Amino acid sequence: MFSVTVRDHMMIAHSLRGDVFGPAQRVHGATYVVDATFRRAALDADNIVVDIGRAAEQLHAVLAELGFRNLDDEAAFAGMNTSTEALAQVVADRLADRVHAGAFGEAARGLQGIVVTLHESHIAWASYERPL
Amino acid sequence: MFSVTVRDHMMIAHSLRGDVFGPAQRVHGATYVVDATFRRAALDADNIVVDIGRAAEQLHAVLAELGFRNLDDEAAFAGMNTSTEALAQVVADRLADRVHAGAFGEAARGLQGIVVTLHESHIAWASYERPL
Amino acid sequence: MFSVTVRDHMMIAHSLRGDVFGPAQRVHGATYVVDATFRRAALDADNIVVDIGRAAEQLHAVLAELGFRNLDDEAAFAGMNTSTEALAQVVADRLADRVHAGAFGEAARGLQGIVVTLHESHIAWASYERPL
Amino acid sequence: MFSVTVRDHMMIAHSLRGDVFGPAQRVHGATYVVDATFRRAALDADNIVVDIGRAAEQLHAVLAELGFRNLDDEAAFAGMNTSTEALAQVVADRLADRVHAGAFGEAARGLQGIVVTLHESHIAWASYERPL
Amino acid sequence: MFSVTVRDHMMIAHSLRGDVFGPAQRVHGATYVVDATFRRAALDADNIVVDIGRAAEQLHAVLAELGFRNLDDEAAFAGMNTSTEALAQVVADRLADRVHAGAFGEAARGLQGIVVTLHESHIAWASYERPL
Amino acid sequence: MFSVTVRDHMMIAHSLRGDVFGPAQRVHGATYVVDATFRRAALDADNIVVDIGRAAEQLHAVLAELGFRNLDDEAAFAGMNTSTEALAQVVADRLADRVHAGAFGEAARGLQGIVVTLHESHIAWASYERPL
Repeated sequence: MFSVTVRDHMMIAHSLRGDVFGPAQRVHGATYVVDATFRRAALDADNIVVDIGRAAEQLHAVLAELGFRNLDDEAAFAGMNTSTEALAQVVADRLADRVHAGAFGEAARGLQGIVVTLHESHIAWASYERPL
Repeated sequence: MFSVTVRDHMMIAHSLRGDVFGPAQRVHGATYVVDATFRRAALDADNIVVDIGRAAEQLHAVLAELGFRNLDDEAAFAGMNTSTEALAQVVADRLADRVHAGAFGEAARGLQGIVVTLHESHIAWASYERPL
Repeated sequence: MFSVTVRDHMMIAHSLRGDVFGPAQRVHGATYVVDATFRRAALDADNIVVDIGRAAEQLHAVLAELGFRNLDDEAAFAGMNTSTEALAQVVADRLADRVHAGAFGEAARGLQGIVVTLHESHIAWASYERPL
Repeated sequence: MFSVTVRDHMMIAHSLRGDVFGPAQRVHGATYVVDATFRRAALDADNIVVDIGRAAEQLHAVLAELGFRNLDDEAAFAGMNTSTEALAQVVADRLADRVHAGAFGEAARGLQGIVVTLHESHIAWASYERPL
Repeated sequence: MFSVTVRDHMMIAHSLRGDVFGPAQRVHGATYVVDATFRRAALDADNIVVDIGRAAEQLHAVLAELGFRNLDDEAAFAGMNTSTEALAQVVADRLADRVHAGAFGEAARGLQGIVVTLHESHIAWASYERPL
Repeated sequence: MFSVTVRDHMMIAHSLRGDVFGPAQRVHGATYVVDATFRRAALDADNIVVDIGRAAEQLHAVLAELGFRNLDDEAAFAGMNTSTEALAQVVADRLADRVHAGAFGEAARGLQGIVVTLHESHIAWASYERPL
């Protein structure tokens, strides 16, 4: 199995609901350093998993939809706790939609899985893994 | 599949028995930077894998039982080579015991797996992965 | 010259005023991974720069005053752009006040300088350095 | 499942063929920071996955066959795009050959899998995973 | 003293002349992860050292002049050993020229120094520091 | 001013005397990831600060004198607290002795300063800087 990973980041504000979150129930924020991994069993005709330039551009585009915003004000997240793990799924699903829509190129239709990891600090991170 | 990882560290002394260990047969020591990963297929009612604050506290408690000690003098490790990979299992098993005992909270009973990685330097690390 | 550095982090929301900030004029947030460095020309009677445990506690206390907050709502920062470099100075000055107040212990009165670095992402960070 | 990882690096020149590579079609180069992971379900008689010293030596030997060269001039890669993911497979396969030839020692015959990751920068890396 | 640092990278091929370089006398390559630090004693009217977006763009432009090339073929480096430390100076001097030409904006004329660090691997890096 | 840094590591056991050290008064250990920086104002005839291969070898040799040992048993450290900052000085002084003895080559006699940083974990490190 092969994989390629690209890294980017986003900076957001939000608050979390539930006693479990303690002081994170207040409006605060995070830099998420985001790793997006693309997996497939066999390389394409160019001997790659995916065009790494395109993968970086698509990840950047997905993060630009989220970054420099207060997620508490976004309709897409109404009634949802935007925990690190939940946001990892949001990013992975949006990348998957773009793969399916052809934004990663035709060869990328051979991709079989995506893993997205959001690092919220030097001591904590969360991941979501899904098939394509 | 979702996962959350928390990082902490411990500083221990020990020696290893067997020609394969070369100079590490002498009493020496290590800082282990420890990553504990918790996995589950679906998020809990708070939209998280596990309470990250509790996970950090529990990992810290497990490492406090080991750190600032010469493991050669610990009854728990009598007759055992405390290699990095063996200590990864010790930490994972003790975390699993605490999950089962409820120390991570009720929602954490939905956790399905643990991975523990011990980094012994910038150029070497070991992991142990187990179901819950 | 000797130095000791301890690392911690804080998660805040804020917005920045001025065209130069582009989308960062919107309410967003950041995880700041914070390195606090303490400098002195000669070690103290215990052969150290500063009690590293106390240094970590004091840094944690300073960051707890700032973290899990929207800095736009804090009286201390009214009318001030809370840029990464400006926050580095805030943290350094508050640490310096605590050194002078004796919170780092008597031996720490021999400290001669502080450097504080705030990492806002894997590709950008800012520092402020001052004498004590 | 246990694993042990060792890290080393190599510095190579090469060019890539295909429009997808843009400016990387020109002769350029890369430092690959290489992580080689060895996996097995149970530890050996010394309570380890593999002799970490030997693993580091063998990885170093494999990288020495590739490093400080222009891969475009190497017969082994004639007609092949030496992408990061393709080189990850080359390194993994050569390590596997050495395991099978006994270069990692007798106990290493119990190894069950290898993962090789090549980091081409702080924002991109590729992996290849295979059984043994 | 304040500073702001931005990180980017470039991938180049080159060879080095002189027995001291051993196998690096052959054509090979490197990924340089490049940190550019800008220093000044007082913040500007926006409470920053420099527009971090512009600094990142300018660093990217300087690296684009060098990256994805075989430096042995570049007229600018004829007869020069393009060691890591020498390239650090090249990048710093080109950034300084751009500051002086106004490419970083008017406020950046208050910058007092630049430090450029090129990381050639996880175990070696070089820096060049100069006033502005 | 130019600098070159090489990284290596050592694994030691020791204990520290003094109430300030808390549980670190017990025999424990550490992995020190060690960065040795060499500084000079002008490059040598090969356009480098120092032969990076030789610098790495000399650092490795100095660390081999200390590593895989219990420093409490070493005559060189009798009656001395082997704190991280004190060990940084030991390493720097031994490197300086080797520069003066010619072990880094003739050109290295132009070196003007050394900085040694010992990372004891992902959240704490200490440095010692001296002229040559």
